[in-house]
Amino acid sequence: MAKKAEDKENNNYVITPAAADYSQWYLDVIAAAELADNSPVRGCMVIRPNGYAIWENIHSVLDNMFKAAGVKNVYFPLFIPKSFLEKEAEHIEGFAKECAVVTHHRLALNNKKKLVPAGLLDEPLIIRPTSETIIYSTYAKWIQSFRDLPLLLNQWANVVRWEMRTRPFLRTTEFLWQEGHTAHATKAEAEAMTMKMIDVYSEFIEKYLAIPVIKGVKSESEKFAGAVYTTSIETMMQDGKALQVGTSHMLGQNFAKPFNVKFIDGKGKEQYVWQTSWGLSTRIIGALVMVHSDDKGLVLPPKIAPVAVVIVPIWNKDSEKTKVLGEAKKIAGKICLEAGLDVHIDERDGRPGPKFYEWERKGIPLRIEIGPAEIAKKTVKIVRRDTGEKAAVALAGLTSKIKKLLDSIQDDLYKKALQRQEKMTKQLNSYGAMKNYFDSENSGFVKAGWCGRAECEAKVKKETTATIRCIPFEKKQKQGKCIVCGKEAPSEVIFARAY
Amino acid sequence: MAKKAEDKENNNYVITPAAADYSQWYLDVIAAAELADNSPVRGCMVIRPNGYAIWENIHSVLDNMFKAAGVKNVYFPLFIPKSFLEKEAEHIEGFAKECAVVTHHRLALNNKKKLVPAGLLDEPLIIRPTSETIIYSTYAKWIQSFRDLPLLLNQWANVVRWEMRTRPFLRTTEFLWQEGHTAHATKAEAEAMTMKMIDVYSEFIEKYLAIPVIKGVKSESEKFAGAVYTTSIETMMQDGKALQVGTSHMLGQNFAKPFNVKFIDGKGKEQYVWQTSWGLSTRIIGALVMVHSDDKGLVLPPKIAPVAVVIVPIWNKDSEKTKVLGEAKKIAGKICLEAGLDVHIDERDGRPGPKFYEWERKGIPLRIEIGPAEIAKKTVKIVRRDTGEKAAVALAGLTSKIKKLLDSIQDDLYKKALQRQEKMTKQLNSYGAMKNYFDSENSGFVKAGWCGRAECEAKVKKETTATIRCIPFEKKQKQGKCIVCGKEAPSEVIFARAY
Repeated sequence: MAKKAEDKENNNYVITPAAADYSQWYLDVIAAAELADNSPVRGCMVIRPNGYAIWENIHSVLDNMFKAAGVKNVYFPLFIPKSFLEKEAEHIEGFAKECAVVTHHRLALNNKKKLVPAGLLDEPLIIRPTSETIIYSTYAKWIQSFRDLPLLLNQWANVVRWEMRTRPFLRTTEFLWQEGHTAHATKAEAEAMTMKMIDVYSEFIEKYLAIPVIKGVKSESEKFAGAVYTTSIETMMQDGKALQVGTSHMLGQNFAKPFNVKFIDGKGKEQYVWQTSWGLSTRIIGALVMVHSDDKGLVLPPKIAPVAVVIVPIWNKDSEKTKVLGEAKKIAGKICLEAGLDVHIDERDGRPGPKFYEWERKGIPLRIEIGPAEIAKKTVKIVRRDTGEKAAVALAGLTSKIKKLLDSIQDDLYKKALQRQEKMTKQLNSYGAMKNYFDSENSGFVKAGWCGRAECEAKVKKETTATIRCIPFEKKQKQGKCIVCGKEAPSEVIFARAY
Repeated sequence: MAKKAEDKENNNYVITPAAADYSQWYLDVIAAAELADNSPVRGCMVIRPNGYAIWENIHSVLDNMFKAAGVKNVYFPLFIPKSFLEKEAEHIEGFAKECAVVTHHRLALNNKKKLVPAGLLDEPLIIRPTSETIIYSTYAKWIQSFRDLPLLLNQWANVVRWEMRTRPFLRTTEFLWQEGHTAHATKAEAEAMTMKMIDVYSEFIEKYLAIPVIKGVKSESEKFAGAVYTTSIETMMQDGKALQVGTSHMLGQNFAKPFNVKFIDGKGKEQYVWQTSWGLSTRIIGALVMVHSDDKGLVLPPKIAPVAVVIVPIWNKDSEKTKVLGEAKKIAGKICLEAGLDVHIDERDGRPGPKFYEWERKGIPLRIEIGPAEIAKKTVKIVRRDTGEKAAVALAGLTSKIKKLLDSIQDDLYKKALQRQEKMTKQLNSYGAMKNYFDSENSGFVKAGWCGRAECEAKVKKETTATIRCIPFEKKQKQGKCIVCGKEAPSEVIFARAY
């Protein structure tokens, strides 16, 4: 009875092969690893414990990096008065079409004894799609003198953007993120801050998430609504599509002027501040899933995995159980103590096979199997999640072997992703070739010259559905031609289809 | 010039004496310690870095306690479909009058070229005032068998209750909190969980926040809308008023039935689950301010203070600065290393006086002053924030002295609050005496018998504005009479005015 139920449970998760249907594979991996679930609210997801634990780790590492950069945390209201959002013209244009609007503050019974919205608000409130306006209206009060600068604040919050087509983690109506907001005395300082934060993101994403990044500037048409310019982190998924996973905006004085954020400089002169904002959201978990996972389920880099090692004790007879479990606990204790790793022991009854599948599905980097045979030989069996490689390892020196294996997994995942990205990036210089490339299956990124004009950018988007992901900071020395019109191209850009 | 600006800044914060106007004193302390600020949105506050750092510490300690109790974190949507809120009759009645309603999903230009709400939703969405309904609709999907139980989840989130009269931390339209939601196979397990979480809260509040608590059950009229019964933590502020700072609800099957949360038990029989929910919010920061602070500003218990020790280096001539700063850094490094404490060095230029006031205002438990005289004598001066006591302490053994002082402050703050609570709690048995007591200044809690009938409770509320805060778990052995009607009183209760 117990066995049957377990089999059934394990068979509940069928993962469509990525090669057969990449989109469905992505959804299946999320379901199989129990990262998230659909909610009864359109476009909103439920982040399950396995998914939330990853977000907690991301939060914890990034938060330390922010604090090391002198940034402090705050919390501003969820609601933004409509008039605030309207103060910056580009900003409201960018967000008007996708904002949730609160119009009433209670429910009351109508004539038909049905509860309907009541208590009409004088001014509608917008659920924050981002918080520049509400935050900077307060900065105007806090900032008086150059002594109040720089002001470096961040908040961890939920935001809402009413997206028409949603996908778990990648694009949801509500999502969790952090948004940093800084004010500086000079343009140069604000520009340096913009770059510093894009570097914080890229360091975090490469080192912890094992995802190679391309850092660059967005084109005018793709920048944040209200920014002078937007820098971004672009990453490549296994299907060759791009995913933007972090942005840092140079806001110049675009918000300082309408919100009157001014300071008295050292010479007694009144000046507008220079500002930046930067954000990274739960979308990054979508990247984590799509870059590393396989047809067996989730694959997690050890540095961000909530559990680094799972121990599956194996016993054939009940009489062996106590001894095997005892040994498993001893090993777990030793690894925790010596390496500070999160180790989970699967103490449940049931056959080992389904347990192995379950932990594979959930992406635990290393699995340790231990049974009477291993105990007799003073060894354990270790299985790598990423490669499936198995090895018998002596108990003596086990912790250092595990640390080495986890380091290898972290490095190998990064290298694998980088090799794929390099392999799936083409340097092209003919528009025909680019069109053909994007028509072909498994197309990835195209590096090509661009003249900088919006019409060439629009033509590519219309004819290939690929967009300019960014103008990479790493510039090619050779001057090229625009791949669309053939004119002088001051910069080389990345074209790709994007999530 | 610099000095003037500094003086001005320090004089900006005038704290009204608590004895003169307790309400204004509370607001002044919050402003002076820079914990929070008003926001441009009605009833919502901005939590400033000093206030948010306290919330981060509360989060961190409580989260560990939850995890030790087997609870995992999740995240559910901000929005609740109106129909969900309506499924439990008492629940919707409790929240209908104070909920923010989203009715539209974009803004569009009207005839007069003004942006107005557009994209009317088929069903209005309520911003969660609490998440029982949205969470349990999903539990119905996740829970199938007794093997899925108990399900112990928690989320850290923002919630909205449209309060008419608001006060920073105590009652704000939006606030931050955690809400735990559990499902169990039996009534006994759910009851045990309800009690376990109220114990987690009380242990945390007494040990970390140094606030004495009274644990008990709410009367029917004061219980959570939808609960079978509510247990709560009541605390006494310095003005004798009560503040409820944490609740744990036994929900029975009140939500399981309308949301169809069922499981197959070990015998193959279908049953409804038994549930609990429990929450603690940023309101607790209001208690922290009101219980310990004084006319100089905030007083923080060391265990929850973001900075435990501030070092103010003092120099008279610029030539002394380097040496004094160097020594201050050495001391800070030593304390951090030996005791793991958060130490801040005030390296700013400017006179020491205003710096002392500033750190007092901000509630840092210990201040260390060090100047050339102290360096010569190999001592520092240490000042306690709570008592103002000053002492010259030898550098040798400084860390252990600091640890002892911090422990004393923590203990003394608790004792002081407990003594006040005991002094301001009267055991009364005549209704006239109770009315007189609540008419007098500085009234506190009244312990008295209550027959259990709603009419006696209502009479007290109408005539004294005091309410039954709780029926304490710690029961008096002697059977008493109801203080209102004189009938048999099965329980003794706490009457008090409340925030």
